[in-house]
Amino acid sequence: MNTVTILGYGNVGQALSAAFSSLSDFEVRQIYCRTPQNLEETPPFEVVSDLQKLAEADLYLLCVSDDAIEEVSNQLPFNDRLVAHTSGSMPLSILNNQKCKGVFYPLQTFTPGKQIPWAEVPFCLEADRDEDLKTLKKFCSPLSERVYELNSEQRKKLHLAAVVVNNFVNHLYYRGEELCKSHGIPFEILHPLILETAQKITEVTPYDAQTGPARRNDQKTLNSQLSQLMDTPLENLYSILTDSIIATYERKEL
Amino acid sequence: MNTVTILGYGNVGQALSAAFSSLSDFEVRQIYCRTPQNLEETPPFEVVSDLQKLAEADLYLLCVSDDAIEEVSNQLPFNDRLVAHTSGSMPLSILNNQKCKGVFYPLQTFTPGKQIPWAEVPFCLEADRDEDLKTLKKFCSPLSERVYELNSEQRKKLHLAAVVVNNFVNHLYYRGEELCKSHGIPFEILHPLILETAQKITEVTPYDAQTGPARRNDQKTLNSQLSQLMDTPLENLYSILTDSIIATYERKEL
Repeated sequence: MNTVTILGYGNVGQALSAAFSSLSDFEVRQIYCRTPQNLEETPPFEVVSDLQKLAEADLYLLCVSDDAIEEVSNQLPFNDRLVAHTSGSMPLSILNNQKCKGVFYPLQTFTPGKQIPWAEVPFCLEADRDEDLKTLKKFCSPLSERVYELNSEQRKKLHLAAVVVNNFVNHLYYRGEELCKSHGIPFEILHPLILETAQKITEVTPYDAQTGPARRNDQKTLNSQLSQLMDTPLENLYSILTDSIIATYERKEL
Repeated sequence: MNTVTILGYGNVGQALSAAFSSLSDFEVRQIYCRTPQNLEETPPFEVVSDLQKLAEADLYLLCVSDDAIEEVSNQLPFNDRLVAHTSGSMPLSILNNQKCKGVFYPLQTFTPGKQIPWAEVPFCLEADRDEDLKTLKKFCSPLSERVYELNSEQRKKLHLAAVVVNNFVNHLYYRGEELCKSHGIPFEILHPLILETAQKITEVTPYDAQTGPARRNDQKTLNSQLSQLMDTPLENLYSILTDSIIATYERKEL
């Protein structure tokens, strides 16, 4: 039996503990939670609120906020068991007080109450020692085949790229919706196009998938569209994104 | 039998003629193409290159480029049959020389050689006369249930919103890929997140779906991320999009 203890029971901790408990050969040994009385539901696992009460496990997964990782790691009553954090932006070295340390970063948005399609979730692993990396792989490979080894610098850049393709993209959806709403247009008209645009770049590169007036440097359409957005929150975004697209294709097609 | 003649045999014309010819009760009467010798494949329909040779049909669909719509409409040897254009950005009035006119705009990206999931494609219709609108509905309802009546002003804004959620979003995918590549990170790691982000806004509003450091106005992370992007094409985009997200939630949460 492979045992894991989950420290922190927010979105990531809940999702991972549910995932491991669904696997045969894997057991969630304990959940550590500082204030269990604040949990909405009692977890179906042994819960401890005192780090001194942690039992032996093969892996201790820190699912706490980025700011708390170092502190919790320092307070652990051992320094010779495998401890891994689950953060995209924190380096492995933040666990330097531990002899056996790793990173176990599932790159996905965790929405409470929503089923995670684990088989689709990429895991980014890092460890200093081969045997620790092997243990981390043992724990994620039953969940997903998408396993990547990235160092801390790469993971930090990946996290930043995720901000671009997730947070910023979502904000453009918001601005598109706002534009629709202000003219009485149901935003759902755009849902199929949004899904198609996302699907497309899994088949062709975003460079080749680019279409639209900026791609063609069609100044007549660009000026007409920009003038429609004067004095709206989209005016500035339209200019900057259009310039960035034009620069991309000018540069490469010289 | 409902008959349609397609004028212009580019991506849209090819896709629509193939779609209609697959329906029972519908017939593609003719294809009009100015220079049929330039076509890569001979269409499985009667092709004419002279507008004078157009036969009688229930609907004439202009699938030519935006700039050519007015000219082709003016050259038609009749002005009392139903003529519709398929453009998102052109008004109905561009067909003012016709007595029976309409807009039949499928909102989708047409990639040559790729199957169109017609049932998912939203059609935006417009006509001055009720009976013309009825005819347009008769032609699109066997293809898709997503039928919307929009006026020319709304369609123009929808087209603009499509630029935002398709062209601009795709460019952010490109910038994210570029960032990954420059650090030896496979971009495919981000594919599931990209699909999840697109899927999510069909279930919750983009306003509620927003996550990330800008949403939390987490200045420490924002400054750290921006400093990593100094002197890259993402620096400016990061600032502008971050400011736009912060402004969105400041304003609404006052």
